[in-house]
Amino acid sequence: MSGASQVLQLTDPLPLDGGSELAQVEIAYETYGTLADDRSNAILICHALTGDQYVASTHPVTGKPGWWERMVGPGKPIDTDRYFVVCANVIGSCMGSSGPASLAADGKPYAMRFPVITIRDMVRGLVALLDALGIERLHAVVGGSMGGMQALSLAANWPERATRVLVIASTSRHSAQNIAFHELGRQAVMADPNWCGGDYYAADAQPDSGLAVARMAAHITYLSEEALTEKFGRNLQDRETKSFGFDADFQVESYLRYQGSGFTRRFDANSYLYITRAMDYFDLAEEHGGKLADAFAGTTARFCLVSFDSDWLYPTSESRHVVHALNAAGAAVSFVELSAPHGHDSFLLDVPALDRVVKGFLE
Amino acid sequence: MSGASQVLQLTDPLPLDGGSELAQVEIAYETYGTLADDRSNAILICHALTGDQYVASTHPVTGKPGWWERMVGPGKPIDTDRYFVVCANVIGSCMGSSGPASLAADGKPYAMRFPVITIRDMVRGLVALLDALGIERLHAVVGGSMGGMQALSLAANWPERATRVLVIASTSRHSAQNIAFHELGRQAVMADPNWCGGDYYAADAQPDSGLAVARMAAHITYLSEEALTEKFGRNLQDRETKSFGFDADFQVESYLRYQGSGFTRRFDANSYLYITRAMDYFDLAEEHGGKLADAFAGTTARFCLVSFDSDWLYPTSESRHVVHALNAAGAAVSFVELSAPHGHDSFLLDVPALDRVVKGFLE
Repeated sequence: MSGASQVLQLTDPLPLDGGSELAQVEIAYETYGTLADDRSNAILICHALTGDQYVASTHPVTGKPGWWERMVGPGKPIDTDRYFVVCANVIGSCMGSSGPASLAADGKPYAMRFPVITIRDMVRGLVALLDALGIERLHAVVGGSMGGMQALSLAANWPERATRVLVIASTSRHSAQNIAFHELGRQAVMADPNWCGGDYYAADAQPDSGLAVARMAAHITYLSEEALTEKFGRNLQDRETKSFGFDADFQVESYLRYQGSGFTRRFDANSYLYITRAMDYFDLAEEHGGKLADAFAGTTARFCLVSFDSDWLYPTSESRHVVHALNAAGAAVSFVELSAPHGHDSFLLDVPALDRVVKGFLE
Repeated sequence: MSGASQVLQLTDPLPLDGGSELAQVEIAYETYGTLADDRSNAILICHALTGDQYVASTHPVTGKPGWWERMVGPGKPIDTDRYFVVCANVIGSCMGSSGPASLAADGKPYAMRFPVITIRDMVRGLVALLDALGIERLHAVVGGSMGGMQALSLAANWPERATRVLVIASTSRHSAQNIAFHELGRQAVMADPNWCGGDYYAADAQPDSGLAVARMAAHITYLSEEALTEKFGRNLQDRETKSFGFDADFQVESYLRYQGSGFTRRFDANSYLYITRAMDYFDLAEEHGGKLADAFAGTTARFCLVSFDSDWLYPTSESRHVVHALNAAGAAVSFVELSAPHGHDSFLLDVPALDRVVKGFLE
C-alpha cells in the first residue's frame, strides 16, 4: 500500500513549551483514504519514539512495509475505505519534519541548537497540520506508546479536536525507571566520540555505535521476559557449542546486535536524544496543576485505553491510572487489558483482540 | 573492620571448562576470625559480578566499608567470633586474582588473551584455595547473585566440600533477558574507542565511557521500579523547573551518572566482559546432562534458597526452579521469599529478615 506523501510548511513560528519558538517548521505526513465532504471521517494516528509517518506505506529508507499495515488499510480495523487517515512525522524526528538534522536559518543543521521540545509541542505541530487540512474535529486520535502520549495530550490541551481518543500501551507520565532507561541511551549516544557534541552531520563517521547501544537498551524494554525466553531462550546462534569467545554465541545477542545496527541506518542520533527527552519530560498531571483529572476537565470525547499484561515498560497500572483520572473527570472511558506475550511491542504485533477493540471503538 | 589480606599462588595450572588451562594463577583473599583446630568452622562467601574479597574490610581503592559488613563480623549473622570466614576475588576479576589485567608469560597484560572462563572455573579456583587452607569441608558456602551461582556450582561439582549451601537472589541459569542486558553492557564497552580491542592498559585513556554505560544498564536491573519511584520519582535535581536541555534534570539521571562514573574508578572493563560472559554461560542443568536435579544427585548438603519479591533480575521463580530440582534430588532444602522493596540489590541492603534467615541457617 502507499499513501500520499506531503510536507506542510507552517507559515507561523511554532511556540514551544520551553519558551522559545521554532520558525520555518515543516511537517511531513502521509494520508490514506478520502476526506469526506463534511470532513468528519479523519483519524489522526500518532507514532511512537522511533516511528514515522509511514504507518501503512513502504518505508523509503528500509523498503519495509508500513509499521501498522496490519491495522491500517482497506477493510482493516482502521479502514481507509471509510476513514481519512493522517499520520505525520513528529517534530524533533528525522523523516522529513523539522528536527535537529534540519537546516537552521544559517543554512547549517540545527544539531544541538534545536530547542528541547515536549510531547505537547509535537501535538502543537499536529494541530497546525489539522488546521491546514481543514479538519476541525477528528473522528478519532489513535496512538500507541509515545503515540498514546500525544493522543492524551491532544485530548487534554485541545479537547474540541477529537471525538474519540484511543490510547494503547501508554502512560500519562514517565516513571523513574522509564527515565533511567532513556538516560542510559542518551549517555551511550553522547559517549560515542563520533557524536561530537551533536555536530556530526558533515562528518564521515556518525555516532552509530552509541546509537546502536541505545537502541539495544530500549529494545530490551519493548519485549517481555517471556517473549525473549520463548523466542530465543538460551539457544546458540549458528553453532553447536559455546565459542568461549566474545562473538554472539546466543541468538538473543545476535538479534540485539542486528536491531542496534539496523536502527542506525534509518534514525538520527540527535533525534533520539530530543524525542527521549520529550518523553521523559511528559507528565500530563504536572502540566495541569498536579491533578491528572484536571487535565480532562470538561472533555466531551470518548476514551479507550488498552494495555497488555506482559508490558513492563508501561504496565497496566499506568493505563489504570489514566482511567481513574478520566472517571474522576466524568469522561466516557472504556478500558481493556489484553493478554499478549510480546511485551510492550504487542501494540505493533499480531494481537487479534487488539484489532477487534480498535475496530469496535472507531464505529 | 579489617581482614587478613593474602594472595595464594597456585602451583599447578588451573584446568578450564573452555579446554585450555591457566598457568601462574593468583587468588587474592581475605579471612576473618580463626580457623578451629578441627577446621570445621569455615564459611566461604562468594562475591557478585562487581564484588570482591573485601566483604567486611575497607575497600583499598574506594575507602568504603566492606560490601557485606552488615552481615559479616563479630556478633553479626555470619559471626566472625564463631566462624572462620574466607572471601576470595574470583579469577577474571581485577582485585588481585588472575584476570585480564594480569601479566601473561610474556610480561604484558593478558587483555583479551585471557581465556574465557565459566562460573565453574571460578569455583575451581576457590576449591584450590580451600585445599591450600586445608579446609576439606566448609561449614557453609554462601553467596548472593553471582555468588549464589558459585555456591550452587560448588554444591553440584564438589558436593563433599560444603555442609550448608546458602543461595540468595540467584539463579541456576541466565535467561535470555539476563543475557540481553549483559550483551548490551559488553557492546557499550567494546564500542568505546578507548577499549582498543582490550589493549588499553598502557594507554592514557581507558574505556571509561563505555564501562559507565554498561554499569548504568546493569544498575537499572538491580533496582525495582518501586525502589526507583520511591527514591527518585520524577524529582528534579538541584533545580525548581526543567532545564529544557540535556543536563541531568532528574535525580534518577544524576544518580545513574554517578553510579556509572564511580564504577570506572574501581573496576577493569575487560574484567566486566569476562565475568558477564561467565554468568551468561552459566546453566547448571546443561552442565549436568540437561536435568537440574541431576546436578544435585547424591548431595548430602543442606540448602537454603532466598529470593526477594521485588527482584526482577533473578525473580522468585528462578529460586523456586532450583528448589524443585533439589526436592527431586531428595536434598534437604528450605526456601523463603522475602518481601523487600529494593529489587535485586536487597541482598546487600538493610533487610532484617535476611539477617535472621542467614543466622538461623548457619546454626
